[in-house]
Amino acid sequence: MTTATASAYEQLIKQSKDVTALGTTIAILHWDQEVKMPPKGIEYRADQIAVASRLYHELKTSSQGNDLLKACEDDANIMSNPLSAEAVNVRELRHAYDRATKLPTSLVEEEAMLASRGQSAWAEARKNNDFKTFQPWLEKIVALLQKKAECYGWAEGGEPWDALAEDYEPGCTAAQVSEVFTPLRERLQTLLDELMGSSTKPSNAFNEIKLPIEEQKAFVRNIAQQIGFDFDAGRLDESTHPFCSGTHCNDVRLTTRFHESNVNDAIGSTMHEAGHGIYEQGLLFEHVGTPMGHSVSLGIHESQSRMWENQVGRSEAFWRWCYPQMEKFFGSKTASLSFEDVYGGANIVKPDFIRVEADEATYNMHIMIRFELERMLMNGTLAVADLPDAWNQRYKDYLGIEVPSDTKGCLQDIHWSMTSLGYFPTYTLGNLYCAQFFEKALADHPSLYEEFAQGEFGTLKSWLNTNIHALGKTYRAAELCEHVTGAPLSADPLMRHLESKLKPLYGLA
Amino acid sequence: MTTATASAYEQLIKQSKDVTALGTTIAILHWDQEVKMPPKGIEYRADQIAVASRLYHELKTSSQGNDLLKACEDDANIMSNPLSAEAVNVRELRHAYDRATKLPTSLVEEEAMLASRGQSAWAEARKNNDFKTFQPWLEKIVALLQKKAECYGWAEGGEPWDALAEDYEPGCTAAQVSEVFTPLRERLQTLLDELMGSSTKPSNAFNEIKLPIEEQKAFVRNIAQQIGFDFDAGRLDESTHPFCSGTHCNDVRLTTRFHESNVNDAIGSTMHEAGHGIYEQGLLFEHVGTPMGHSVSLGIHESQSRMWENQVGRSEAFWRWCYPQMEKFFGSKTASLSFEDVYGGANIVKPDFIRVEADEATYNMHIMIRFELERMLMNGTLAVADLPDAWNQRYKDYLGIEVPSDTKGCLQDIHWSMTSLGYFPTYTLGNLYCAQFFEKALADHPSLYEEFAQGEFGTLKSWLNTNIHALGKTYRAAELCEHVTGAPLSADPLMRHLESKLKPLYGLA
Repeated sequence: MTTATASAYEQLIKQSKDVTALGTTIAILHWDQEVKMPPKGIEYRADQIAVASRLYHELKTSSQGNDLLKACEDDANIMSNPLSAEAVNVRELRHAYDRATKLPTSLVEEEAMLASRGQSAWAEARKNNDFKTFQPWLEKIVALLQKKAECYGWAEGGEPWDALAEDYEPGCTAAQVSEVFTPLRERLQTLLDELMGSSTKPSNAFNEIKLPIEEQKAFVRNIAQQIGFDFDAGRLDESTHPFCSGTHCNDVRLTTRFHESNVNDAIGSTMHEAGHGIYEQGLLFEHVGTPMGHSVSLGIHESQSRMWENQVGRSEAFWRWCYPQMEKFFGSKTASLSFEDVYGGANIVKPDFIRVEADEATYNMHIMIRFELERMLMNGTLAVADLPDAWNQRYKDYLGIEVPSDTKGCLQDIHWSMTSLGYFPTYTLGNLYCAQFFEKALADHPSLYEEFAQGEFGTLKSWLNTNIHALGKTYRAAELCEHVTGAPLSADPLMRHLESKLKPLYGLA
Repeated sequence: MTTATASAYEQLIKQSKDVTALGTTIAILHWDQEVKMPPKGIEYRADQIAVASRLYHELKTSSQGNDLLKACEDDANIMSNPLSAEAVNVRELRHAYDRATKLPTSLVEEEAMLASRGQSAWAEARKNNDFKTFQPWLEKIVALLQKKAECYGWAEGGEPWDALAEDYEPGCTAAQVSEVFTPLRERLQTLLDELMGSSTKPSNAFNEIKLPIEEQKAFVRNIAQQIGFDFDAGRLDESTHPFCSGTHCNDVRLTTRFHESNVNDAIGSTMHEAGHGIYEQGLLFEHVGTPMGHSVSLGIHESQSRMWENQVGRSEAFWRWCYPQMEKFFGSKTASLSFEDVYGGANIVKPDFIRVEADEATYNMHIMIRFELERMLMNGTLAVADLPDAWNQRYKDYLGIEVPSDTKGCLQDIHWSMTSLGYFPTYTLGNLYCAQFFEKALADHPSLYEEFAQGEFGTLKSWLNTNIHALGKTYRAAELCEHVTGAPLSADPLMRHLESKLKPLYGLA
């Protein structure tokens, strides 16, 4: 590497680190707003975020960045090994730079305005079960996103949805998603029919017991610590909607929520967010502020949260360890619960309307419905006015339920009102990647479940650290899947996981 | 006002608000670091603060700012009434702009480096009681600050110290400070001699009782709320060194500290910081981000913290209300304490070495010693090598005590190691302003003490809101004092306050 180009690369990395330092400062402002800020602070907080965001965008799109990128791209010493940290950083910084500079400022501002006003209109419409008042906003949003997709462009043979999904799942296309979702839907429907047709069902006692919130707090904190979340490099607080704010690997902030009569929700939320957090903590500090120190995509992120929430946290082995822990935290209050009540109660399947309350099996149906509809909205084959009917028809076809109102139907999620189309599939992609990764981890370490039953989770965590976290953005999601598991993404591992666990719980072979 | 100049003023204000939004974002990063950040986050936090600070400085010194200022200064409609919000904002933004642009970047960077390395060297020297290892750093710091003072300049007849104090107490000069401090020292010495010579002393029982920290927390929170700190626009947390981070009037964050056997310290710290907080909350939101929405100076800020800590919190009337409260929070644990134990225990006077542990009377001696020494350092009439001897001699002369070590002597404070010379006097100026303001408030509302005894503090708070807080930076500190009290700053009110309270407690007429 010549001195001149080394210097271009060093400058590029310096700029990337500056952009990240400011971006993570904005993340702290958001975290603080949700978790610590006094109520009257809200109005001015918007001003603080707006100023920091403007400076962030200016730094990110500075024309100097393009010159540095070109100098690096022309340097064979940097680019010859496409899997070197240097080449990965240049490739991904180019990707980010091109995305950030492809949109005219007017469109960025229009989207910010629409996202804010659309969200207010959505909240009002949802409260009043009145889709008609939200319809004009969603029409504006779809029209704007179609323009935005045109600005970004999409690959030959692709479609507008692809251009939006690129923000959440780089390299992912609707056609690819479809290819995995279609067989998944068929097999899920068969499984759900079998489960719902069975006269044997797990006990619901675990989901009905009331437990003091202070005791729940200590209980879930202990679980997060046990599975490997590092509290010297992170926090666990409370918020209305649980989230993980990963500012960098040494400062990762989780939130969870508590209801007196739903400890199961607190456990699931905490393990889910801790899974995100363990991914963030597993990124390498030496790469902080560069793509090599950043997660791959939302889908891969979700694979890590689902890993701990579902593959671990709803497994029989996990409960062999966790069930006896309950006495330590809740004393005699949980004495009436058997092991079967607890393990079964964590795995009840029940088709229902609300995505965020859905179980591990039906959850993916909610996502597939949203994916199909947003794809059609973007292609212009579904008019916004027809959305409620199309939504309700699918809930009938896929889950066998009649949606009682738009509030419990197409108005339930905030995403589209915030202009986030192309986002939903990352949830199910996460479940799919998760199952496929876990099968491989289990093949590499057949004793994983025995370890879980002993409260030992370090082998799985190390496997994830080495095979996924430490790689940063070396691979795109689909490549990472092939690299790690030796096979392209498939619906099979997730279905094997669900079938092998749920059928016995429902008294089926 | 013509459209063109209205627009220049609007742009100037917009810029001021942007600068403040970023400045307060940095304040949130600092607060978070002290109060919430996980321990491993520290290294990267420095990067986040450095990037935000660089952008902050760039925004603050943008050349556009100078053009806007000139346009406003040339507009008679803005400047004709010097006490209008517009004129005050232009005057103060000019002052800030000129200060920020007078220093060469190299000096700013050198100071940042010296502050950081000097602080490390100081911490090490303090730990090892080894002034010699800190001496070369303090020599560098003094030399740099002499250069810095040259860049800023000072008024005819002034001296280098004035140029530094301008950052903390605009308009304040060493000569003015001296004029008030000299009579204060003489009268304080007389009072201390009398108190120390008396055979009657207040009981120390209050300072020896052990009380559970959780109960102390609820107790001091209740006091902060009662005196008027708005918890919907603020927080109270814990940190090693108590502070108030006033990001803006609707988001003011206090910290305090707790020791099992020193509830008195927790009360004093909480009321002190709540006093700072009540000032910040009393600034007007309509002026947020402009000088009219900003506090006057450190001295005036300190006058507000001391107001609640001392004039209120160590008064007999306050304890008439607070003493019966103790039973509610501590049950029978404080039953052994009489009213006299508690009121007397909050007012014990004892000459000692450590400033931050000093009582209301001796505290000012510590400050005067530091002021005299830093003034001489800046004038070149005291060599750094001679500092320990000069320090120890003054402690003997002013407080009658032999300093046992430099760690308990001239190495005890962090300020000089951080290049903060010119800062110390603001503490005593605060005590002086406080006493003078309180005398006026009491003249306007003779029933104040009766109200305190009933737990009513709203009259005093409203008086401060109206006469001091709501004015923002309309007046400089000395002018504000004359405007509010009708007289220039004097040592008399503070001495009257101390003498009238302490003499009876020590059995003197």
